[in-house]
Amino acid sequence: MSDIYIIAGGDMRFAALAEEFGKKHEVYLTGFDKLTSDLKGCVCTEKPCRLSIKADKLILPLPVTADGVMLNAPFSEEKIFLEELLPLVSEKTMVFGGRAGDEVKKLFAGKGIGITDYFEREELTVLNALATAEGAVRIALDEPYMLSGSKILILGMGRIAKALIRVLSGFGADLTAAARKSSDRAWAEVMGCKSADISALSESGALAEADIIFNTVPALILDRKLLCECRRAFIIDLASAPGGVDKAAAAELGVRTVHALSLPGKASPVSAGRIIGRTIENILNEKEV
Amino acid sequence: MSDIYIIAGGDMRFAALAEEFGKKHEVYLTGFDKLTSDLKGCVCTEKPCRLSIKADKLILPLPVTADGVMLNAPFSEEKIFLEELLPLVSEKTMVFGGRAGDEVKKLFAGKGIGITDYFEREELTVLNALATAEGAVRIALDEPYMLSGSKILILGMGRIAKALIRVLSGFGADLTAAARKSSDRAWAEVMGCKSADISALSESGALAEADIIFNTVPALILDRKLLCECRRAFIIDLASAPGGVDKAAAAELGVRTVHALSLPGKASPVSAGRIIGRTIENILNEKEV
Amino acid sequence: MSDIYIIAGGDMRFAALAEEFGKKHEVYLTGFDKLTSDLKGCVCTEKPCRLSIKADKLILPLPVTADGVMLNAPFSEEKIFLEELLPLVSEKTMVFGGRAGDEVKKLFAGKGIGITDYFEREELTVLNALATAEGAVRIALDEPYMLSGSKILILGMGRIAKALIRVLSGFGADLTAAARKSSDRAWAEVMGCKSADISALSESGALAEADIIFNTVPALILDRKLLCECRRAFIIDLASAPGGVDKAAAAELGVRTVHALSLPGKASPVSAGRIIGRTIENILNEKEV
Amino acid sequence: MSDIYIIAGGDMRFAALAEEFGKKHEVYLTGFDKLTSDLKGCVCTEKPCRLSIKADKLILPLPVTADGVMLNAPFSEEKIFLEELLPLVSEKTMVFGGRAGDEVKKLFAGKGIGITDYFEREELTVLNALATAEGAVRIALDEPYMLSGSKILILGMGRIAKALIRVLSGFGADLTAAARKSSDRAWAEVMGCKSADISALSESGALAEADIIFNTVPALILDRKLLCECRRAFIIDLASAPGGVDKAAAAELGVRTVHALSLPGKASPVSAGRIIGRTIENILNEKEV
Repeated sequence: MSDIYIIAGGDMRFAALAEEFGKKHEVYLTGFDKLTSDLKGCVCTEKPCRLSIKADKLILPLPVTADGVMLNAPFSEEKIFLEELLPLVSEKTMVFGGRAGDEVKKLFAGKGIGITDYFEREELTVLNALATAEGAVRIALDEPYMLSGSKILILGMGRIAKALIRVLSGFGADLTAAARKSSDRAWAEVMGCKSADISALSESGALAEADIIFNTVPALILDRKLLCECRRAFIIDLASAPGGVDKAAAAELGVRTVHALSLPGKASPVSAGRIIGRTIENILNEKEV
Repeated sequence: MSDIYIIAGGDMRFAALAEEFGKKHEVYLTGFDKLTSDLKGCVCTEKPCRLSIKADKLILPLPVTADGVMLNAPFSEEKIFLEELLPLVSEKTMVFGGRAGDEVKKLFAGKGIGITDYFEREELTVLNALATAEGAVRIALDEPYMLSGSKILILGMGRIAKALIRVLSGFGADLTAAARKSSDRAWAEVMGCKSADISALSESGALAEADIIFNTVPALILDRKLLCECRRAFIIDLASAPGGVDKAAAAELGVRTVHALSLPGKASPVSAGRIIGRTIENILNEKEV
Repeated sequence: MSDIYIIAGGDMRFAALAEEFGKKHEVYLTGFDKLTSDLKGCVCTEKPCRLSIKADKLILPLPVTADGVMLNAPFSEEKIFLEELLPLVSEKTMVFGGRAGDEVKKLFAGKGIGITDYFEREELTVLNALATAEGAVRIALDEPYMLSGSKILILGMGRIAKALIRVLSGFGADLTAAARKSSDRAWAEVMGCKSADISALSESGALAEADIIFNTVPALILDRKLLCECRRAFIIDLASAPGGVDKAAAAELGVRTVHALSLPGKASPVSAGRIIGRTIENILNEKEV
Repeated sequence: MSDIYIIAGGDMRFAALAEEFGKKHEVYLTGFDKLTSDLKGCVCTEKPCRLSIKADKLILPLPVTADGVMLNAPFSEEKIFLEELLPLVSEKTMVFGGRAGDEVKKLFAGKGIGITDYFEREELTVLNALATAEGAVRIALDEPYMLSGSKILILGMGRIAKALIRVLSGFGADLTAAARKSSDRAWAEVMGCKSADISALSESGALAEADIIFNTVPALILDRKLLCECRRAFIIDLASAPGGVDKAAAAELGVRTVHALSLPGKASPVSAGRIIGRTIENILNEKEV
């Protein structure tokens, strides 16, 4: 007899995840009543109370809740309280959630159940970095010139930067990655692009020449002084809020900037949902061993 | 003393070309009065008659004219007759135009002047293929899933197909190129992708598996029978009108299809203008030798 | 009943081809007696006369003969005359050979049989270009420095040059391709490398900077004057004899040069044999249709 | 006045480093008397005692010594005791060495001088991984078949594995990377190759299919049981001694294996020397700040 999965709330990513899981498991949904088309292989309900079953696995969205009280369920006509989920679990239920805060943890702890946070898993972070890179390249392709032959500066050399370098590698752009650590600059070379010292951006001349700048560093890198050097650059800021650009100064100086947040869910919700699904499967496989 | 260039009519591409040429030459414009911002390094006029000079080089748009009578000048408030251009040329003027038809040729032949068609140049075709590939990838990136890991089928193995393979190479997609000639299939392998015989698409199973199909062949390749096999494919048809897809059948069968024409001018007008500029420079350099 | 293939003579490529064909056909060999290990799935004989069968397909080596009289059979202890092959064919036999000259054609024409030259097929040329590129990169890797970060100049933009650009693309070298035609230089850009005008190599400074030069042009490109500019370059000449380098001048000037000929057969005999086999299969498939 | 560098002992890497430093600094050498050609920009001596100067920077080889007593100086006719180096340093001298052991540290500590170990620097490790990857690909290219189209299995997903994936990316091989951690398998996908669970190699079928296996994991991965599955693989073991392959079992089972150690110094000594030089420069730059 196969396991019962209940997926409660979430955006398009969780609809995609539901269809993916519907191929192999018995899947029930709650909080998706606004979706006009049925999700293949899934049983839909409006409110949790309509489900008179216990979940083997309960999958909560990313984030689980915005206010600690209501479930994050944009596809639900009615509001769903987190408390309404409790009748769906028994002590054998495994609960998965993304960025589950203390309130959520406390709620389920009352039933003796811990929450596994899939958002803390490294493989999800890595694959989301790739989704972010694809989304960022899509934004760059809206510029009226080709990426081929353009000068691109990438600030930072973490996961998103590495994914960007890889995705951009076929476009024939002139890539420079700027990082503080000399080992990160060495990685830039291994990946076939030029490197610059992010602590000495002015001296490198990279800002003045750049057509597109992708920032991945979550710290104020592009301050007013450096923005003055950006002669023609369009800045795509991928760092989590507040980002790495002095926006007021950029606006004043006429340096175009877009702060692109949560790209996986926005640009590739289907893939982003599958990534969450795969991460949950990895967790389950590891538990089995 | 530097040469006088007159650029008459055209879209954003020719505005970009004007700015590029304005860096090195004395450039006059006619037919760009609707542009709100000035073009750097260029002298603008509304009507050709306002220019009381002779051009050393006269650059006409792509295409020069739609009806054989009026200049193709979307940025001009008033209509400009091709005849109005004649006072701008002397027998020493070199005239360049894109897809200049018989009427245009005849008009200038009356003044003893031939027209060099930059659109017939191979390097322009090659670079436009690259611009087309970037534009096509941008369309593909609008899909709700990532290109990484998706199955992409490219029909044809000409310039656009080769540019597509190259541009897509960093995305980690599963690429198959289908061509009729065995040597073209060999090229697909040299470029690192799988190949299939386009005359035996059904047998290959490539259609059924494809997430995205790029068609580059200007012939009816995807007929009703083959479209029936496209289970989930989104088709991006890059072949010039009427394209390579039975659109009526596709609509009926629910196979999503977009016919993306003239991508260089639409998706990358600045680069497309520079490509035309570079082609004209190549022609001039070759004449000098 | 399956077809009888006789493979007569040839080097390691034809041993590999024999094993490949031995998986699907009834394969007899002659001229391979020096090979110490048996070829899987094949029946070996020393002299053609020992084979008392007629071939459905007779496969001759590349080249078929050096002198028009003896079969090219380096793995045979005894010499084999071309004439000795005649008893193996009937008028229904298809004969394949590589670079078959007039003597060979005449010999079989006497029996009413034409020879299909697989070496003239475009797909073989394309795949051999890739094998050549791999062999050439292997030579370059013998240098005491890494290809990553080195400056590489490729002369020409034909098949081998394109394959080289592709194979080298992961090494992070600084690639420049030099070609005469502006459309070929456009291709270089599409493939993500810099381009130079081969008619103006001196002006480009590319020779002075190059660490490695791959020549693919079968004409005297690197004459004494240009060789004087090669400050540190190691030249790998891939053009068929007499090659594209003034060897006497290079030796005198101390510019290291290697003339690397017939790389597919030397560096990748197994693959080169499979390529010939695949080409023959393509020919047979096309005949069937 | 420029600093005085003394380079004492070492192999070709340190000769290359000396020439590199000779372009900018005053460089003295000891322990290179066997080198037949002069090193550009350097003053050579046989024995340290012939140098009547103090070094601002003293550069010792990698490793500094094999036995804790004699300097590692393969290009020296005579043996050089580590003690002989002491007169070359003052308390202002900075001493650099690779894998300097306790004896060496103690010796210089007696003079109040610490040794900076460049071999512990992350950027050196990263760039050496790239040099290792190039050397490993060179070994693979000696196989009689092309890498294009061959099936390559990479065990591990550390620095060398990542560099290998990158370097191999232009060859069109069918790449699979096997790793234990799911995040490492995610990285494999980001880099465009397939992934497998190294703890379940048997189940994946990857061993049976592989033409070439690169091992980068310093643990016994390929034991007798797994080696039995390697039907045609050639194994290139890049893990430091004792490597990751049961060599006795491999020999018995006829699985060809090469243990390729210290590839940077062997395959690309000039680059490996420059990498050490660059690392030392990074250290000096960081001290300045």
